[in-house]
Amino acid sequence: MKHSPWNWINPELTELQTTTLLKYKAGEEQLSALFGLKKGFTVTKCCNRNWEKEMAPGKKGILERLNAGEVVIGDGGFVFALEKRGYVKAGPWTPESAVTHPEAVRQLHREFLRAGANVMQTFTFYASDDKLENRGQNLKLTGVQINEAACDLAREVANEGDALVAGGVCQTPSYLSCKSETEVKAIFKKQLDVFLKKNVDFLIAEYFEHVEEAEWAVKVLKTSGKPVAACMCIGPDGDMHGISPGECAVRLVKAGAQIVGVNCHFDPMTCVKAVKMMKEGVEKAGLKAHYMVQPLAYHTPDCSCQGFIDLPEFPFGLEPRILTRWDMHKYAREAFNAGIRFIGGCCGFEPYHIRAVAEELATERGCLPAASEKHGNWGAGLEMHTKPWVRARARRDYWETLKPASGRPLCPSLSLPDGWGVTKGHTDLLQQKEATSKDQLKQLFDRTKNQ
Amino acid sequence: MKHSPWNWINPELTELQTTTLLKYKAGEEQLSALFGLKKGFTVTKCCNRNWEKEMAPGKKGILERLNAGEVVIGDGGFVFALEKRGYVKAGPWTPESAVTHPEAVRQLHREFLRAGANVMQTFTFYASDDKLENRGQNLKLTGVQINEAACDLAREVANEGDALVAGGVCQTPSYLSCKSETEVKAIFKKQLDVFLKKNVDFLIAEYFEHVEEAEWAVKVLKTSGKPVAACMCIGPDGDMHGISPGECAVRLVKAGAQIVGVNCHFDPMTCVKAVKMMKEGVEKAGLKAHYMVQPLAYHTPDCSCQGFIDLPEFPFGLEPRILTRWDMHKYAREAFNAGIRFIGGCCGFEPYHIRAVAEELATERGCLPAASEKHGNWGAGLEMHTKPWVRARARRDYWETLKPASGRPLCPSLSLPDGWGVTKGHTDLLQQKEATSKDQLKQLFDRTKNQ
Amino acid sequence: MKHSPWNWINPELTELQTTTLLKYKAGEEQLSALFGLKKGFTVTKCCNRNWEKEMAPGKKGILERLNAGEVVIGDGGFVFALEKRGYVKAGPWTPESAVTHPEAVRQLHREFLRAGANVMQTFTFYASDDKLENRGQNLKLTGVQINEAACDLAREVANEGDALVAGGVCQTPSYLSCKSETEVKAIFKKQLDVFLKKNVDFLIAEYFEHVEEAEWAVKVLKTSGKPVAACMCIGPDGDMHGISPGECAVRLVKAGAQIVGVNCHFDPMTCVKAVKMMKEGVEKAGLKAHYMVQPLAYHTPDCSCQGFIDLPEFPFGLEPRILTRWDMHKYAREAFNAGIRFIGGCCGFEPYHIRAVAEELATERGCLPAASEKHGNWGAGLEMHTKPWVRARARRDYWETLKPASGRPLCPSLSLPDGWGVTKGHTDLLQQKEATSKDQLKQLFDRTKNQ
Amino acid sequence: MKHSPWNWINPELTELQTTTLLKYKAGEEQLSALFGLKKGFTVTKCCNRNWEKEMAPGKKGILERLNAGEVVIGDGGFVFALEKRGYVKAGPWTPESAVTHPEAVRQLHREFLRAGANVMQTFTFYASDDKLENRGQNLKLTGVQINEAACDLAREVANEGDALVAGGVCQTPSYLSCKSETEVKAIFKKQLDVFLKKNVDFLIAEYFEHVEEAEWAVKVLKTSGKPVAACMCIGPDGDMHGISPGECAVRLVKAGAQIVGVNCHFDPMTCVKAVKMMKEGVEKAGLKAHYMVQPLAYHTPDCSCQGFIDLPEFPFGLEPRILTRWDMHKYAREAFNAGIRFIGGCCGFEPYHIRAVAEELATERGCLPAASEKHGNWGAGLEMHTKPWVRARARRDYWETLKPASGRPLCPSLSLPDGWGVTKGHTDLLQQKEATSKDQLKQLFDRTKNQ
Repeated sequence: MKHSPWNWINPELTELQTTTLLKYKAGEEQLSALFGLKKGFTVTKCCNRNWEKEMAPGKKGILERLNAGEVVIGDGGFVFALEKRGYVKAGPWTPESAVTHPEAVRQLHREFLRAGANVMQTFTFYASDDKLENRGQNLKLTGVQINEAACDLAREVANEGDALVAGGVCQTPSYLSCKSETEVKAIFKKQLDVFLKKNVDFLIAEYFEHVEEAEWAVKVLKTSGKPVAACMCIGPDGDMHGISPGECAVRLVKAGAQIVGVNCHFDPMTCVKAVKMMKEGVEKAGLKAHYMVQPLAYHTPDCSCQGFIDLPEFPFGLEPRILTRWDMHKYAREAFNAGIRFIGGCCGFEPYHIRAVAEELATERGCLPAASEKHGNWGAGLEMHTKPWVRARARRDYWETLKPASGRPLCPSLSLPDGWGVTKGHTDLLQQKEATSKDQLKQLFDRTKNQ
Repeated sequence: MKHSPWNWINPELTELQTTTLLKYKAGEEQLSALFGLKKGFTVTKCCNRNWEKEMAPGKKGILERLNAGEVVIGDGGFVFALEKRGYVKAGPWTPESAVTHPEAVRQLHREFLRAGANVMQTFTFYASDDKLENRGQNLKLTGVQINEAACDLAREVANEGDALVAGGVCQTPSYLSCKSETEVKAIFKKQLDVFLKKNVDFLIAEYFEHVEEAEWAVKVLKTSGKPVAACMCIGPDGDMHGISPGECAVRLVKAGAQIVGVNCHFDPMTCVKAVKMMKEGVEKAGLKAHYMVQPLAYHTPDCSCQGFIDLPEFPFGLEPRILTRWDMHKYAREAFNAGIRFIGGCCGFEPYHIRAVAEELATERGCLPAASEKHGNWGAGLEMHTKPWVRARARRDYWETLKPASGRPLCPSLSLPDGWGVTKGHTDLLQQKEATSKDQLKQLFDRTKNQ
Repeated sequence: MKHSPWNWINPELTELQTTTLLKYKAGEEQLSALFGLKKGFTVTKCCNRNWEKEMAPGKKGILERLNAGEVVIGDGGFVFALEKRGYVKAGPWTPESAVTHPEAVRQLHREFLRAGANVMQTFTFYASDDKLENRGQNLKLTGVQINEAACDLAREVANEGDALVAGGVCQTPSYLSCKSETEVKAIFKKQLDVFLKKNVDFLIAEYFEHVEEAEWAVKVLKTSGKPVAACMCIGPDGDMHGISPGECAVRLVKAGAQIVGVNCHFDPMTCVKAVKMMKEGVEKAGLKAHYMVQPLAYHTPDCSCQGFIDLPEFPFGLEPRILTRWDMHKYAREAFNAGIRFIGGCCGFEPYHIRAVAEELATERGCLPAASEKHGNWGAGLEMHTKPWVRARARRDYWETLKPASGRPLCPSLSLPDGWGVTKGHTDLLQQKEATSKDQLKQLFDRTKNQ
Repeated sequence: MKHSPWNWINPELTELQTTTLLKYKAGEEQLSALFGLKKGFTVTKCCNRNWEKEMAPGKKGILERLNAGEVVIGDGGFVFALEKRGYVKAGPWTPESAVTHPEAVRQLHREFLRAGANVMQTFTFYASDDKLENRGQNLKLTGVQINEAACDLAREVANEGDALVAGGVCQTPSYLSCKSETEVKAIFKKQLDVFLKKNVDFLIAEYFEHVEEAEWAVKVLKTSGKPVAACMCIGPDGDMHGISPGECAVRLVKAGAQIVGVNCHFDPMTCVKAVKMMKEGVEKAGLKAHYMVQPLAYHTPDCSCQGFIDLPEFPFGLEPRILTRWDMHKYAREAFNAGIRFIGGCCGFEPYHIRAVAEELATERGCLPAASEKHGNWGAGLEMHTKPWVRARARRDYWETLKPASGRPLCPSLSLPDGWGVTKGHTDLLQQKEATSKDQLKQLFDRTKNQ
């Protein structure tokens, strides 16, 4: 099989089909011109490294890439994307569809790969046993089953392109319910055992509201000898106990994380700002680290310290806040300029958002993602539109300056966040195994209405 | 294989896996209670009719269903959904990925089926040969290849559930360029030949801006003997030559369409309004028809007669206009109350939008869609959320009255539409085979800037 | 006393003071240049006609002016302006301060005169005896007292410049309570008697929601032999019984009005649209009339047929809707282009709004208003601002294209109007003399909350 | 003449007229009930102290009042209010109409008095000679003439009620142009000489962007022996050289100011926040002071450190930002709760805004303002409205929770501020006597467009 620059578009295609496809492609040269890439650059550079089922000797690890100054593009968030596709339930947010609907999870992995992602995170968010049982959820699948299935899917797709597999853990209901360090660490250990069995390429501890729990996670993951990245889900105001981004980062680096950053909870610009503060903290402390950011694809200028969870629109009314692809160009540039080299996304990111990040950084990365075959640079595809006034939108300055309307004149532009000003340690946040009862719900409804 | 109500969730699962799954389900009873369905109703009623690879004798045709007063749920739009996933190029909007990336098209079909759709439209939008060559597009795949691949995919997934396959044609660049009736009809005939070979269940002529072209299409499709549905992409102001929705509908019924309606170009409420006008026109003329509506999933209160194409945000800045699932509940109810029984979606619809339509009409249809296993009624899944103030959002009145903020305080809520006030017959709209040249583009840019 | 073009700035000034003043003026020439007026034009043309206490022979009547094609500028609304200054009570909206606080009423007249108004409307809105007693209002001043005081004030200020006095009547609670034609006409007659005694220059019947009542008013006023103008407070949807603007206008002209138009209830563009429809109706009927418009200074794109009364913001939350002076330029031009020659304002108009109308039409009128000595053309005064980036705003294209922000990100841009869909003839609208009781209020509050 | 609580409504009225008026008043008792004032309270307490032309022995000074814990209500801003009325020119913003149009200035004083103001600030903003000559302004009136006329008007109206006269100075173009301390102080001294000659009750140094210049002003005013108040026009970010509100306040108190605070440039909540920071600074330094606040009546959440000057809407497009009276209730309460006792307004404040402040604090002050005779508490006047659905708005919770729409769907809710990041000391800010030339303007326009 000839490893053309295009056959990763769809590895199932025969060589004949690939050749057919190539005939109608714009061709490398034309594509390069379209995107204004520098001479000598090819679109294939980062894409055709290997096709083996296992990580080949030629596939560089995460730290090798970052140490070499490469830009590493992350994938987008799975729970929100799969909720919209019908495979994740909002509320528990657990990833059992890795077992029950592997074709849906595999397809989403593929779309992110095609969009330019270099990292396939295992779909193991909230896949700890304590979470799988939280609040009356009655999953009969074990955490081990789900984690294993998720690792297999991530590996399968990672091997279709130049991507690494990252095993992921996140905050636990046990910590929120004030369980001991030993108990919480045991939960992380259980997931780590699967990741090691499945031989993931590196590890990510992410979505932590409290740095203490993140440190515990890092320490557990660190025992594996694999590279460890750690992300808080905080903004510039710091963690839920008010610990600043800078201090959080220092503590995570000291705990053993080689890569630190933030994910989720805030929009791109806010997250980049928080990571900048982390970087300043780490540098001020005389330490070294790589930096990553995987923000929301929702505009959240009105969030308080706990992020988009507290917005009244969370999670079923966030549509008007979704970022456009052009917002993503600004985000990618801002993150790059801040010295962040692991740049991905979290909740709300669809494949086209990741593609926009990859297109903005095409020159820096020396390649375009496969999915750019279906995307003109800065709207160039509109040159083929039927209506001339739409063809007139085929230019960068049009999209760069557009202020998109909401079409919702009865809605405000910002909201006041909810939230009761409590965090771990408060009885309001103790978790229970049984379902929330009607009486408990009534109390919640009344409490909210009176605010 | 036991035909449980749940095994269509994923037909690839073994019976054992299905049983496992069933154990963690809420169960029919609980689900029915959750959705407030009337007694005696079961969630399986519409779902487990047959599992054959060909349309079984027991699968009712589109007219049988509509004649029986059933609600038929359509799918959502493919070109926009697949553009975001990386498989369709905005501008030409052609469906060649039916050939090149069948797994992506198949997955989207499956998600709509799972969300409750009873119709799988073949992914053949703009799959006519004249469109495949328009404005320098250099596809080497023929229309026949694409149409055939699309039929196969639709049939494959339709047979996984209770869905029919509808072969679809739409308006052509030839008509816009003032080609003759014979020439335009020949284009439709070529697609019809594929549909007949692949034995689709019925036919849809959709997305017509001019009723004359729609009539031509209906007349061609009518020769097949299969049921024909016809949709204009117009609003209450009528077609591009000012012909009212009522008159358009009468002409389409007279041309042979058994089902008439509108699709695309406007938001749900506007489309329902236009279909109401169609219904009034048809009834006033003493004719009979069934009615369908497949609107955008974008709020477009600021559109002029040509719909969302003319909005400055089309097509890359429409995010803030995306409807929430709760908007879809209102749409489904409004459409049903207007006497429309074929209710689906077009551009912007994601699977969860179709699921919301199916959930709103669960009582009328006597069943819930498979994807509702992952969705609490009116936010009920939030009862399992970690934070108590988010659990307090697990209620209908919360989501029904929410006015979601855009998070974009620098953006307006409405836009002024573009558009040059021209339509078919004007030289501005003549299409060309070769790509738009730089000079032509410059003229367009300048013309727009001066407006 | 020398009648310089400037001494009407303040007729109380001595000649010496005037001379002093003149020295620091920009001077006619400079002012003309500033406003780009054509050569030969002088700023004094329309301003120094007479200074007598009575209407001099040289002061042309309203019909003479309109017949000659002149633009006549009206004043702004008094009840809203004086409510903000502390002299009118929102709710009853009655003009007793003409008696109790003449200095405040006089000053407002003067400001409108200075801003360019050619008409001083007597401050007699809702000054009919039935209104003065409505709903428990306990005024001991008689309608005659108020009407007389108002006439004196209007005359006093009119004589300080080139303005006419217009005696005004408006709709009555009696009509709303289904009193007889005789009774309602008697109310108008009582006000007319004062206007005749005080020898106003012409008469205006304005603010009628029902054309029938407006006809009755015109017929009463017509008996005086003075010119009669008649304004409905309607939009393009017509009066409260659905009678179209065209038909309303025809009926008013047939009743004897020489000038017809609309005032209040809608924003400028909507009002101009309604007057255009009146003009078309009158011309279609083969009749002749002059046209006037005195709209709100509030943006009301979201109004239903009853206008801004039904907006949730009426009357104490309308601030974000206030028109800028630049909006007024567009209004004045639109009204002029529509063939309307009597152009003024109603509720919300402040003196600077009228000045903007006068400045937009300076070339057509051949003069600038006195208040333009304190206003650079299209922001030219900013050339003298301290900060250079503010000086950069001293240009027309800046202000003409500015989309002013509300500074209210938690507020929507449009509202849903209230209103119970009832009008004259419905018991909900019967008026009572006694104050609304607490029980009655409670019923209203509950009824509204349940909607 | 009987000093009834009401005759200051209009001191020109005869006793008979006053009696007549009183008959239609609601009466003290009813008014008290309406506003829910505590028993024993009378509406007359603060209003009938004296009617003499000079400050009577019984009229308490500003410090006596504040030391006694009384709430002192300031007036609103004159330059913006009179700009709208046609007597001040935006750009130079100078107060020459104190000489040329005394009746307009007097009337505005009266309206603020009637609205509840206890302080009449002399209309002497920018009345220093260097400002009167700035940028080609060609006033032939001297600073002394204007300052004297302004003092006379303030005194005349102050003596009609319970108000004090405050002589005011503000920042100078000389300071901005880097003149010496001696030169700048000489400018303040010249205005002070007039204030002493006219025997004002106390002095206010206000609208300073740089604390150094404010200190100079305080030191000059302090030589008079009169009480001195000092206001910066800064927000929480401090002065233009980044000196914090707390440090500014300490320096002003040390320079001799007995009252410190902020005025202008920011909306009420921002200003209150800045004054709180001043208070904290002063208390931390072990010093003592009274506090005042006179904010804008415009919402400015989007301002940067230089305040509303830098908003693109300044000064001719600020309408959508105007505060409602209900916003003022919240402001007054917030300021009171922050320990501020001198509470007034600046640009944008109209008399009804000051009335709202006085009504919110009616219980604390023990009296209602005269203008409340024309204002129902929290919309109570609407009980008399013709339409029942408008009567339903006669209640506090309606207005308190209303989110008023802008009626401007094409406009954003927030703006990005202008500003070149320069302040005193930068050549961009050097002032010149001659008018800005066309060439200079062109440079400014181009510079702005390129940003």
